[in-house]
Amino acid sequence: MKRIAVLGSTGSIGRNTLEVIRNLNRNDYPVSVEYLTANSNVKLLLEQIAEFMPKAVCIFDKTAFESVKSSSVSVRSELLCGSDGVLEIIKRDDYDLLVNALVGFTGLVPTIEAIKLQRDIALANKESLVIAGGLINEMLKSSCSNLIPIDSEHSAILQCIRGESLNKVKKLTLTASGGPFLNYSKEQLNDVTVEQALKHPNWKMGNKITIDSATLMNKGFEIIEGKWLFDIDIENIDVVMHPQSVIHSFVEFTDGSVKAQLGVPDMRIPIQYALTYPDRVASDFPRLDFGTLKELTFIKPDFDKFECIKLAYDVMKMGGTYPVVLNASNESAVDLFLKKKIKFPDIVSLIKNALDNHNSNGEIELENIIEIDKQVREFVSSTVLL
Amino acid sequence: MKRIAVLGSTGSIGRNTLEVIRNLNRNDYPVSVEYLTANSNVKLLLEQIAEFMPKAVCIFDKTAFESVKSSSVSVRSELLCGSDGVLEIIKRDDYDLLVNALVGFTGLVPTIEAIKLQRDIALANKESLVIAGGLINEMLKSSCSNLIPIDSEHSAILQCIRGESLNKVKKLTLTASGGPFLNYSKEQLNDVTVEQALKHPNWKMGNKITIDSATLMNKGFEIIEGKWLFDIDIENIDVVMHPQSVIHSFVEFTDGSVKAQLGVPDMRIPIQYALTYPDRVASDFPRLDFGTLKELTFIKPDFDKFECIKLAYDVMKMGGTYPVVLNASNESAVDLFLKKKIKFPDIVSLIKNALDNHNSNGEIELENIIEIDKQVREFVSSTVLL
Repeated sequence: MKRIAVLGSTGSIGRNTLEVIRNLNRNDYPVSVEYLTANSNVKLLLEQIAEFMPKAVCIFDKTAFESVKSSSVSVRSELLCGSDGVLEIIKRDDYDLLVNALVGFTGLVPTIEAIKLQRDIALANKESLVIAGGLINEMLKSSCSNLIPIDSEHSAILQCIRGESLNKVKKLTLTASGGPFLNYSKEQLNDVTVEQALKHPNWKMGNKITIDSATLMNKGFEIIEGKWLFDIDIENIDVVMHPQSVIHSFVEFTDGSVKAQLGVPDMRIPIQYALTYPDRVASDFPRLDFGTLKELTFIKPDFDKFECIKLAYDVMKMGGTYPVVLNASNESAVDLFLKKKIKFPDIVSLIKNALDNHNSNGEIELENIIEIDKQVREFVSSTVLL
Repeated sequence: MKRIAVLGSTGSIGRNTLEVIRNLNRNDYPVSVEYLTANSNVKLLLEQIAEFMPKAVCIFDKTAFESVKSSSVSVRSELLCGSDGVLEIIKRDDYDLLVNALVGFTGLVPTIEAIKLQRDIALANKESLVIAGGLINEMLKSSCSNLIPIDSEHSAILQCIRGESLNKVKKLTLTASGGPFLNYSKEQLNDVTVEQALKHPNWKMGNKITIDSATLMNKGFEIIEGKWLFDIDIENIDVVMHPQSVIHSFVEFTDGSVKAQLGVPDMRIPIQYALTYPDRVASDFPRLDFGTLKELTFIKPDFDKFECIKLAYDVMKMGGTYPVVLNASNESAVDLFLKKKIKFPDIVSLIKNALDNHNSNGEIELENIIEIDKQVREFVSSTVLL
């Protein structure tokens, strides 16, 4: 019996994780859900509680927590609230794998706490590594935690390097669908709406990552994530546009051989791989059919049109706390765009402005990171309100 | 220092093997060439001897052997002749890996002898497994020989299952370029010439395998080879046409994940993988450039137009000595086609006729296989002469 705790169970990755757990139990790979956390989607969380009967759940949002507390629905799980509740769950020692499916900066402290406590983590929260990859890798050296990526691209790479030596890896090439605006001109990007940006051609995901996919910041983040996960120089990580999202990434080895992992664009496959790693377990998920595949296409990314990819390389070259600024300014800007307070191209402008106004100093430690994150968010908001 | 013996050193795989050995030595992976065998290309063999200074060489063809013996060129390597000479080289115990790059049935006895003698084999001679895969696998159980495939498709599969459990493999999908006649109608195939059939769009190979690629018998053979190498039911081995020959094969796992190995169509990559297995060594071979890859296409194979693929499945279902007949009749028919004694579609007709006239009986043992091979060749010749 594998015992799982899911942070962010009502989000897209969280729901898919529970779907994977249903599949695993159907396929004689027993998995129990011990803990769940959600932000405020009480209706879905109550359904999940009824189905999986976790020991405890944490509702992040205080109002939502109170509404459950005072409701007539009988919940036998222990009820916790806020970030303290999340940390309390991480501290419990009767689960085997923590799925971190939180969105954005919120996921960082749980990742760090879990590593301190020697927990194995299936990581969907790529921002943890974007913000503090160096710190996390340093901590992993003296922890027995395993960090298993859930991102389809990094799951692809993990699968391709299975049984290989990391020092024989020459280059990682991340594939990018290109999002909804792949074929838009830079001018056309000026007038795209939130609704257009939320229509991803291949993947059904949460709002924040869908906007990140439209700006290609998501791919920028994945470059940084790849650097820390696989200990490879940023210059040896490349991106190619691949609109079909069938090949999830490529690994080139020193001998010239290349391996790739493929599949239908369905997050359940990489999630299951992370949950059962290093095992593979049968699934009923849809299969690739090569007879009907017809064609896979590849296009060089246009860094001028999608500047966010370039910014990811830039902050890694600048080092220090610049990646913290990249993430914080992006989160703020995406939030403002989703609230229709800024236009689509303003996202990248706000990020660039925040980076220009930053001087990397101070230790790359959690306290400092939290402080910078707060300052940058305030800075971004202030420039928009002015 | 890895010590290599190359059977068939003047053929396409043999020459590429020596090129790989040059690369390995350049890249601080010391390899020596201890033994060489060739059929009759004396000029090239003498150049290879001068460069690699093997302990002994065997010239299969008696006339060619005599011409070297009596020539004024000073050869310091021991000179051997004929199939006895080849077996004598296999028996030597001062090499680490035997590269079997012989063409067709001729490669079978060397493979079997090498397994008996516990030698590691890099196998380009797929016919060994087509003819006697069951027998070879039985022998491998009580031998410490390793059989490492050189075929690009099987090298791809070997690389994709690296670090994986074979019992988690659900399906192998071999890619096929489709050869020069992929887009020909069945009627158009009636009049194709030897010269047209020898023009493979992607791979530069020897004559026999190039004709096998034009009839798709090569892919049929690879299905059988895959079955024996990876212990997988023939029903779980599929073929898809992929004209660019960039993806060399796919492996689907039980969880729905698929892995593929890719590369420029260059035999030096799989040959080097076999020579250094399980290591990978840096190479200067051309690289895939995803930025310029543009598109990869896939087409369902037309078993009606390319019947040889279907015949491979058929003989495996019929079992017994039918695969021996498939190989022998194909070798005879290809030989007749290359000599312009039959038309292109006659190849498959002769094979079907030979299979129809065969009754699988007797033990699947080497003596019986050799006898059947001889009978089938005589039968095919006799039907053409009539």
